[in-house]
Amino acid sequence: MEIENINVSSYPSSEKIYVEGKLHPIKVAMRKIALTPTVKIINGEKVTTENAPVTVYDTSGVFTDPNVKVDINRGIPRVREEWISRRDDLEQLDSITSEYGKMRETDSSLDAIRFSRRYAPRRAKAGAQITQMALARKGVITPEMEYVAIRENANAEALGIKSHITPEFVRDEVAAGRAVIPANVNHPEAEPMIIGRNFLVKLNTNIGNSALSSGIEEEVSKAVWSCYWGGDTLMDLSTGDNIHETREWIIRNCPVPMGTVPVYQALEKVDGKVEDLTWEIYRDTLIEQAEQGVDYFTIHAGALKAHADMVGERLTGIVSRGGSIMTSWAKMHNEENFLYTHFDEICEILAKYDVAVSLGDGLRPGSIHDANDRSQFLELDVLGELTEIAWKHNVQVLIEGPGHVPMHKIKENMDRQIDKCHEAPFYTLGPLTTDIAPGYDHITSAIGAAQIAWMGTAMICYVTPKEHLALPNLEDVRNGVITYKIAAHAADLAKGHPGAQVRDDALSKARFEFRWKDQFNLSLDPARARQYYVESHKSDDHFCTMCGPNFCAMRISQKLSDDCAK
Amino acid sequence: MEIENINVSSYPSSEKIYVEGKLHPIKVAMRKIALTPTVKIINGEKVTTENAPVTVYDTSGVFTDPNVKVDINRGIPRVREEWISRRDDLEQLDSITSEYGKMRETDSSLDAIRFSRRYAPRRAKAGAQITQMALARKGVITPEMEYVAIRENANAEALGIKSHITPEFVRDEVAAGRAVIPANVNHPEAEPMIIGRNFLVKLNTNIGNSALSSGIEEEVSKAVWSCYWGGDTLMDLSTGDNIHETREWIIRNCPVPMGTVPVYQALEKVDGKVEDLTWEIYRDTLIEQAEQGVDYFTIHAGALKAHADMVGERLTGIVSRGGSIMTSWAKMHNEENFLYTHFDEICEILAKYDVAVSLGDGLRPGSIHDANDRSQFLELDVLGELTEIAWKHNVQVLIEGPGHVPMHKIKENMDRQIDKCHEAPFYTLGPLTTDIAPGYDHITSAIGAAQIAWMGTAMICYVTPKEHLALPNLEDVRNGVITYKIAAHAADLAKGHPGAQVRDDALSKARFEFRWKDQFNLSLDPARARQYYVESHKSDDHFCTMCGPNFCAMRISQKLSDDCAK
Repeated sequence: MEIENINVSSYPSSEKIYVEGKLHPIKVAMRKIALTPTVKIINGEKVTTENAPVTVYDTSGVFTDPNVKVDINRGIPRVREEWISRRDDLEQLDSITSEYGKMRETDSSLDAIRFSRRYAPRRAKAGAQITQMALARKGVITPEMEYVAIRENANAEALGIKSHITPEFVRDEVAAGRAVIPANVNHPEAEPMIIGRNFLVKLNTNIGNSALSSGIEEEVSKAVWSCYWGGDTLMDLSTGDNIHETREWIIRNCPVPMGTVPVYQALEKVDGKVEDLTWEIYRDTLIEQAEQGVDYFTIHAGALKAHADMVGERLTGIVSRGGSIMTSWAKMHNEENFLYTHFDEICEILAKYDVAVSLGDGLRPGSIHDANDRSQFLELDVLGELTEIAWKHNVQVLIEGPGHVPMHKIKENMDRQIDKCHEAPFYTLGPLTTDIAPGYDHITSAIGAAQIAWMGTAMICYVTPKEHLALPNLEDVRNGVITYKIAAHAADLAKGHPGAQVRDDALSKARFEFRWKDQFNLSLDPARARQYYVESHKSDDHFCTMCGPNFCAMRISQKLSDDCAK
Repeated sequence: MEIENINVSSYPSSEKIYVEGKLHPIKVAMRKIALTPTVKIINGEKVTTENAPVTVYDTSGVFTDPNVKVDINRGIPRVREEWISRRDDLEQLDSITSEYGKMRETDSSLDAIRFSRRYAPRRAKAGAQITQMALARKGVITPEMEYVAIRENANAEALGIKSHITPEFVRDEVAAGRAVIPANVNHPEAEPMIIGRNFLVKLNTNIGNSALSSGIEEEVSKAVWSCYWGGDTLMDLSTGDNIHETREWIIRNCPVPMGTVPVYQALEKVDGKVEDLTWEIYRDTLIEQAEQGVDYFTIHAGALKAHADMVGERLTGIVSRGGSIMTSWAKMHNEENFLYTHFDEICEILAKYDVAVSLGDGLRPGSIHDANDRSQFLELDVLGELTEIAWKHNVQVLIEGPGHVPMHKIKENMDRQIDKCHEAPFYTLGPLTTDIAPGYDHITSAIGAAQIAWMGTAMICYVTPKEHLALPNLEDVRNGVITYKIAAHAADLAKGHPGAQVRDDALSKARFEFRWKDQFNLSLDPARARQYYVESHKSDDHFCTMCGPNFCAMRISQKLSDDCAK
């Protein structure tokens, strides 16, 4: 199988730059946007003033570096390979260790769709505590920590804005569990990033096929596309055919951390029969995926058997796939959710590869009616208990959050999460602030996401316009990512992240000075801004079709300002 | 000139209903959405339960009433004509009284584009105080007041939900200036609606041509389209050719109140030369438009000469067209803004027709950088003074607000507005919570609009995806309106408006029960929800392409619930 290279190119007027580390031999990728000068006519003379370039955080990986020729069929460069290979707390295995992985590897009928390169997996040496959290607690500043410290200051550094984010600060936040650096030792392609409320708000995108749709090439395209537009992490939620092989293609080409919900694949392994799920099958799935390089697992260990009895109180029952599977399993077997009872063993596995756990909110409300109800908050209490268990194993923890929540009930979610889950980073889906707009749920949820991110949510999970209706296509992914970049950035501004406003100011200055191209290039989606403009304009005039020549406030205002200056 | 009828049809599975008044012979239009029954198989038997229809607030006028045959060339039915004709405080003039209006009327070269029907204008008899505010202060409950009281309870009434909104409450809010019913006696086509923070949040849409684009037919189409999707009021911001005639076509076909910014037309009358503007030209424009039926005027009377000197402090100067015109005029003539100096006379004119004044924020910030700065807040203080003057004349008042404001600075805007402007309803553009997303500013601003509406803004002015880039087309109007319906409804939920959640609950129930058609029909944009679904589905299955048959949480959860019930 050969996949055509994904068609993304570098951003207009932008240069990929690499900032070097001081503690480690690392090169942190950023994007520098060049601007045109300001030109004014003062007293009949043309006066030109340079505008400093704007450097921004960049999630697109090497796909936007014209100096790197990417071949999807061989995977992207392994940026962390050298750092990882130097570590003495890891061992490289001869081969993969999961039963399922071995079975797939030796199945020649899969050769046609298999990713061609194979890498032997790494894991912790016996007894070694290798996670970023374990190292942080020992006082170590890892290359990953220095990388994210530099990366977080992309906007600020060039302008000399003082930032609280230093490598030491990163280490301390990770040690305290307030921040997570998802960094499986088997995903060296990923550029390190950090999730925590004292850092830039991050956004996750979901891709993945279902039994009814979509193949490998399409999913890899969506993954690259998501990173291109600004996705900070990526979840592969595939539930269809060839999940194992699809994931391999994605991970080997994914410059951001990738997450999964392992129970989806475990359920596929038993042909979708919930009653046939077993701990052993699930356990093997964890190892299979950890050895491929999945950086975080959503695990619905907090949806307990007792909670299933409360479903009847709700308007929309359980809308989390993982939550519905695990509570159904528990009822069918009249046993407790095996993810809860085996949580210590789960953490032991995750700790070996530095896979973070994202504690799933299996009982998140699926409607305004069910928001903040007792089953939701009872589960949150359980997630708090599980957080402490995971931290004992040095496993990094995220807590997943709702769902559907009206605006006046958002703050309670954030406050309770911080309290009950000991400040572990909150990672929320939306929340959607009304149920009445299918087709526009990227917007109903961006309204909630911006608010909860401002209040302290560390990562927001995007919602596309197709939510509740269908799987997203490429254009939906783009719309979902940009919408969530807006929500995240609005929150960064409100939180006063160092340098966050630099880009706003540069764009607004360009707008006021009719530097249209700079305005487009500084925007989150330069192609769309340009397209809308070009469709209705003939030239780079000092006014636009909105107002025409006589009614341009900025032209009149500039003239006034110039006149006053004379 | 003949315009083809605008192609909007009734909403799917919806019926236009008319609720009769108790105090007045009025019929309040609403939309009743019929739902299909819930069908369950319990112990092998099919059990059917009816679902009550949902009645919703409806802005679409007679365009969605299949019993009314609309002819755009003759205008829509004049729903308030009878109420107005019975009033003894009004006189019907023989002809229009503005100089400009007369000139246009006798110019035979305009016959080709003129609206065919003519109506003699009405105005207050000498000495009569005829505005809704004047009548409310006298203790009168007008037909308009009863109409809006019934209309506001559209969601609640059928379900017997107790509402604080009675005709008496409406009267008291209007008398106090906390709410406005824009209702020019010369726009009897408009169905009464109310703007105030103790009522449903309303949304305004802007349409209008510029010298570079768009003709009469297109603008009428946009107007009807805006009402169809849910616009509560409409501003015609035309600055291009034939503003007078375009406006006549729109008003005669507009079932919602219409606003304008009269200085735009005044400036066109002097060929765009700001220095040539005069109070006399402006005054004649007010009369011209009041006699056509404009329901509210945006008047930038608070942008004073002294403020122009502060423009230099800003990153983006003055971005309000009206604000830039008036401050420039003041500087050029070295005189105070004539809208400020003539404000008493303006109110005398407005009071005769019951045109409300919307005090423009000529100094609203045009960038995150300029938000909440001293010129913005100094102007707000002036708007507070002007509010008291208008109220002396019984002129109803709205206060316009920003603009570009980051989330953490929104609340200060709302609190200061309530304080400085004596609780007159706030009417805000967005606010946009970041500057970096041209092409998506409906979203950057919906995030801010939902928040400020929750905090107390009475009406939010939509922003379309083309903001800053081009004039909106029909599809942009639709996207802008639906986005703002979402923000308004999210705020209504958060504020606990009586019955607001009825529609959310009905839609979520339909979703949980896989009643796809009901889900579409209850949504803000049934056509789009349906389109997204149909594009990727083959039938009304009990699962969708998102998850496929094995992974549908709602199916698993329903089964669990059904099993528990056995």
